[in-house]
Amino acid sequence: MLPVVLLSDFGLADHYVGVLHAVLEREAPGVARIDLGHEVAPGDIWTASFLLRCAWPHLPTGCVVLAVVDPGVGGARRAVAVRLGERFLVAPDNGLTAAAGAADDAVELAAEAMRLPEPSPTFHGRDLFAPAAARLAAGTALTALGRGIVPASLVACPLPEPRRTAAGVEGVILHVDRFGNLVSNLRAADHPGPSTVELRGRLLRRVRTYAEGRPGELVLLEGSAGYLELAVNLGSAAEATGLSRGDRIMIARRSPAGSR
Amino acid sequence: MLPVVLLSDFGLADHYVGVLHAVLEREAPGVARIDLGHEVAPGDIWTASFLLRCAWPHLPTGCVVLAVVDPGVGGARRAVAVRLGERFLVAPDNGLTAAAGAADDAVELAAEAMRLPEPSPTFHGRDLFAPAAARLAAGTALTALGRGIVPASLVACPLPEPRRTAAGVEGVILHVDRFGNLVSNLRAADHPGPSTVELRGRLLRRVRTYAEGRPGELVLLEGSAGYLELAVNLGSAAEATGLSRGDRIMIARRSPAGSR
Amino acid sequence: MLPVVLLSDFGLADHYVGVLHAVLEREAPGVARIDLGHEVAPGDIWTASFLLRCAWPHLPTGCVVLAVVDPGVGGARRAVAVRLGERFLVAPDNGLTAAAGAADDAVELAAEAMRLPEPSPTFHGRDLFAPAAARLAAGTALTALGRGIVPASLVACPLPEPRRTAAGVEGVILHVDRFGNLVSNLRAADHPGPSTVELRGRLLRRVRTYAEGRPGELVLLEGSAGYLELAVNLGSAAEATGLSRGDRIMIARRSPAGSR
Repeated sequence: MLPVVLLSDFGLADHYVGVLHAVLEREAPGVARIDLGHEVAPGDIWTASFLLRCAWPHLPTGCVVLAVVDPGVGGARRAVAVRLGERFLVAPDNGLTAAAGAADDAVELAAEAMRLPEPSPTFHGRDLFAPAAARLAAGTALTALGRGIVPASLVACPLPEPRRTAAGVEGVILHVDRFGNLVSNLRAADHPGPSTVELRGRLLRRVRTYAEGRPGELVLLEGSAGYLELAVNLGSAAEATGLSRGDRIMIARRSPAGSR
Repeated sequence: MLPVVLLSDFGLADHYVGVLHAVLEREAPGVARIDLGHEVAPGDIWTASFLLRCAWPHLPTGCVVLAVVDPGVGGARRAVAVRLGERFLVAPDNGLTAAAGAADDAVELAAEAMRLPEPSPTFHGRDLFAPAAARLAAGTALTALGRGIVPASLVACPLPEPRRTAAGVEGVILHVDRFGNLVSNLRAADHPGPSTVELRGRLLRRVRTYAEGRPGELVLLEGSAGYLELAVNLGSAAEATGLSRGDRIMIARRSPAGSR
Repeated sequence: MLPVVLLSDFGLADHYVGVLHAVLEREAPGVARIDLGHEVAPGDIWTASFLLRCAWPHLPTGCVVLAVVDPGVGGARRAVAVRLGERFLVAPDNGLTAAAGAADDAVELAAEAMRLPEPSPTFHGRDLFAPAAARLAAGTALTALGRGIVPASLVACPLPEPRRTAAGVEGVILHVDRFGNLVSNLRAADHPGPSTVELRGRLLRRVRTYAEGRPGELVLLEGSAGYLELAVNLGSAAEATGLSRGDRIMIARRSPAGSR
């Protein structure tokens, strides 16, 4: 039995997340269930994709991700299950499946394949996605869950890539975390130190750990997912800068003062 | 071993929910534990009953629900465990046990039957309800947990039923969910289309999915629990109408315009 | 396999908690995982210590607590694992390990002992603490995880003890819970009834259960963790008094009116 990793925009105040868990346990008794997060804002596929991408390399090698951020539920969007290596991902085809990379195989889910009552047109998470995830966890073949589709036809990931402009490399803030850290889409490996970010004419000091920041100092460091992030030690970079998701930052062309 | 489904008003900021889980794992090692929700407002038996009723049909056939919304803890209210079909429910006798239907059997919990230290008068969830749930999960007979009581003596469910009035059928908003959907107590099966709701002189269009709503349009549809609900596609019906829990809505006596 | 109990200040909006769970399941498949809480404010070692202390006696006899409130991650603070009786605790050495009592054994975690890639300097929870907790859960000996250290060298618990002053015994509010109860550090066993608290010249009535409080009445009672707490039945003592964490309260030298 593979563990199932759950991600949704259902919040924790309603019964929706509990019902996903109940269906998984009902359809695959004893399955290990892991909550990746349910506080994604309603319909926020961007954030769900970000969380999924950051968590992906650390998930069990074989697992099933059940991702339900589904503003188009019951409409024309496809319900799909895909395979990436030894991991499966069950989700609406709205960009979520692409967050972790290109799929090796993909099917469009067919409710009949699940041999369950007709799904409610307003809660496919409960009636289609969770049962499909349970079956994959229990060893059902991907191809048994629906009609094969071309992986390249899946909707692309909403997360933007950095851009090379005349002025240099331009990144975008992908996420503001609970600590106020501003996580960009700039991969630290593409910008080895002492390269740094220039913000409002100031070069940020690049450090290795949050604790190296002086009180109140806005610093740049490699975050745990490999992206460059702006941080304030024991403070909030989001508050200090007023920056938020989607805002742009530039890699400085000058070297930081004092470095060589 | 039966899975245990947890529901409470403890929130997630304190240690109370974690302790319920710890006691379950301590008393029934390896038991599957499912959180139905813990964000119910303090003492809000209505919402707890609503969540329980909506989740009920989707729970594993055999399971134990541990529901602790217990403003009268330590007072005169009874602590009970009941059986409905193959499911058990352990809760204070304050209306919670009736949310899912009429009990087949019921006992008043006796702390001595649990062979545990005297329960704290302020946390029966930890010292009485969770140990009882763990015993039921592990196969202890209901009758071993206390003195049998007449199921009809259990406190009634607080959720109101629709009323037939001179003006027509009057429903009540039972719940506002995270998406701002207004879920009523009107069962869709009792009001098949094209019957609809009249709000402030306007007949709401009845649709099948959220996605059918035009931008900003307040629509009526059958929600995933079988109740009629008011919704705005990609928006909030609660914000659009100002309606909230307990407010009344009327089934229209006229047919919606354009239907026959 | 021992169950693992998780406590952090990561909140539930990011992927951090989900990743801790994923690493535990990846490194110790099938391990029971219990969330004690993740809503501790960023860096709030005090509250994490309080939650841990209250939950401790109710945890499974053998278990591993994974506590990650780690404002100094990547800095000079030690990463440790300790044993208290049959329970283990894996945490940064910043006071957390002392919340539940004095350790019997302790080691400083060595990343090499985990045979994992070098830990990210910003997320030891994922790369060091969770893998160590998984190994302890799976039966690895504490001494295999790093170099032994003297338990007495661990950083002390931040929670203050009551003080005897000329005016009497002075306690401190340790925690305000979701219900607005003000939990002090005064152990009820040290202050048997009718001893009570004097607040702004008024003696609080000491009761046994919340339900004994009259509407709006501020009462004193023994909470579920054995501490004296101030409460308002069906209300909030925090709102009623304006008191919050860290505020001082005094045990009255007079007996409450009407008692003897």
